[in-house]
Amino acid sequence: MAVFTTIEKSDLDAFLQNYDLDALDSYKGIKQGVENTNYHVYTKCGHYILTIFEKRVDPVDLPFFFGLTEHLSRHGIPCPAPIHMHDGGTIGMLCGKPAALVTYMKGETLSESTLTVRECGQIGSILARMHNAVQSFDMRRKNMESLPSLLPLFERARPRAHEIEEHLAGTIDEELSFLMDHWPKYLPAGVVHTDLFPDNALAEDGELTGIIDFYFSCNDYLAYDLAIVINAWCFNGAQELQENRLRALLQGYESVRKLEKAEKEKFRILSRAAAMRFLLTRLHDWLFHEPAHFVTPKDPREYLKILRFHQNENILDR
Amino acid sequence: MAVFTTIEKSDLDAFLQNYDLDALDSYKGIKQGVENTNYHVYTKCGHYILTIFEKRVDPVDLPFFFGLTEHLSRHGIPCPAPIHMHDGGTIGMLCGKPAALVTYMKGETLSESTLTVRECGQIGSILARMHNAVQSFDMRRKNMESLPSLLPLFERARPRAHEIEEHLAGTIDEELSFLMDHWPKYLPAGVVHTDLFPDNALAEDGELTGIIDFYFSCNDYLAYDLAIVINAWCFNGAQELQENRLRALLQGYESVRKLEKAEKEKFRILSRAAAMRFLLTRLHDWLFHEPAHFVTPKDPREYLKILRFHQNENILDR
Repeated sequence: MAVFTTIEKSDLDAFLQNYDLDALDSYKGIKQGVENTNYHVYTKCGHYILTIFEKRVDPVDLPFFFGLTEHLSRHGIPCPAPIHMHDGGTIGMLCGKPAALVTYMKGETLSESTLTVRECGQIGSILARMHNAVQSFDMRRKNMESLPSLLPLFERARPRAHEIEEHLAGTIDEELSFLMDHWPKYLPAGVVHTDLFPDNALAEDGELTGIIDFYFSCNDYLAYDLAIVINAWCFNGAQELQENRLRALLQGYESVRKLEKAEKEKFRILSRAAAMRFLLTRLHDWLFHEPAHFVTPKDPREYLKILRFHQNENILDR
Repeated sequence: MAVFTTIEKSDLDAFLQNYDLDALDSYKGIKQGVENTNYHVYTKCGHYILTIFEKRVDPVDLPFFFGLTEHLSRHGIPCPAPIHMHDGGTIGMLCGKPAALVTYMKGETLSESTLTVRECGQIGSILARMHNAVQSFDMRRKNMESLPSLLPLFERARPRAHEIEEHLAGTIDEELSFLMDHWPKYLPAGVVHTDLFPDNALAEDGELTGIIDFYFSCNDYLAYDLAIVINAWCFNGAQELQENRLRALLQGYESVRKLEKAEKEKFRILSRAAAMRFLLTRLHDWLFHEPAHFVTPKDPREYLKILRFHQNENILDR
């Protein structure tokens, strides 16, 4: 679905000359992924992932993303670590675009429809480990998908929002105004993933093996990241809460990092904001997606339904 | 055979509190290894190796060893990378001894008697990749097993050397004097492994998966490291040269890093020195081993035979 850049063997051979690897054996494009182009790269004795960064990722942010995944790997979090070139750098150029080589992680990406309760417990525990490990990571990146940052996207979608649901623009206006008025002033914060959907987690034989795709990671509240994960992992395809998944996920998280009183009290606000963030980008992408990219946009109504769930209760009070 | 330090679950639980890992699931001692104590450590979602450093390793050298394996991992060389603690450090204390946690590498250690030609080719290629990758590593460590450094060990063994072979002390004196007179003044150098025997390499399904045990690594000539590997991988149990293994190993090495003219010319000297280094330590350990450690000493005569092979020819001239 999404190999945006096709590479020739001679280009890849030349690119690999920058690394301390053995000779290229073979390579093949990876169809999953909607932001960048990814290839499996096999050398005689190794297996790596090559990522070519398409326009959605700002090259200025790449040192942050690779600094983060290297830091997390060093702290034992299973995620792809960048391979360094002879000169110590991690970002090269391939076909005129920034490109990087990272370690291959075993396992298959998960899907909400086939999640197990055990996997939900494991993602909770890994998320909390990441939230602990980033306390010693000192690079920073602004959240470009915070609600204020997404307002221009919403303004573009506003005139056509009614195509999704009657009065949707008014509903969103009201909710945004509520969230901005009630946004917590201080909660434990750090660099968080903010896009940890099941398809950004890998598992093999029912065991979580890795976390991928850190290209939305940024500084924000830790509990906001947890709220995003709960929305993505604990509602089924009909957006009904799966209580057993929720319990396992929270138990996994709190077995590593206990939530503070303030985080629990504000969790309804955080969950609503987490739903709104994906409602806004999905609304925009649904209305303005580029058919040329062959990417099927996701239905914004799913996150409208999750938002309405959180308007009525604090999910942690169950 | 060699779990020198027995640890209690409560000690390990406390030690793991320093890391961003999930809860301890189980652990078990690893019998291989003659220098340090190693344990498999399983957390709910991870598998690591715990090493407790016994008296043979100087704790002062640990930052060098872990700096090296981290550097090599970053450059794509498959070796155990240290897991960092909350405070960024890699070396903690367990049962009053220095201890560290590293990534688990899959695969089983190899043995000379079951080596395949393919594995010999792969070790050649990985060795050359290491020799390239260390060019950007800037920590240094003196070779503590260089021939001059081993002289005191030989002096201790001298009065009993005849127990191994008649006139052995004289033979060694003569060879040491030749080697010191002919030692090359300049060859390409860097941090090298110097102990890359088959039992320090891991493989799975006939594919090399990793290199372990960097506790003898130090600055020395790259080709001296290659000579050590050839002695360890290309002679069978009767110390007969296996030409097919030698060809594969050299081809694997030179597919990544071409040997320079001077390295080839001096290879007979390097090979003799590489044999002498293990002859001297084996001679000493054979005569003075501590039965209490349950470690079977290796026969020094094997390396005497390999030394005599190299006295007669430059193995690269085959």
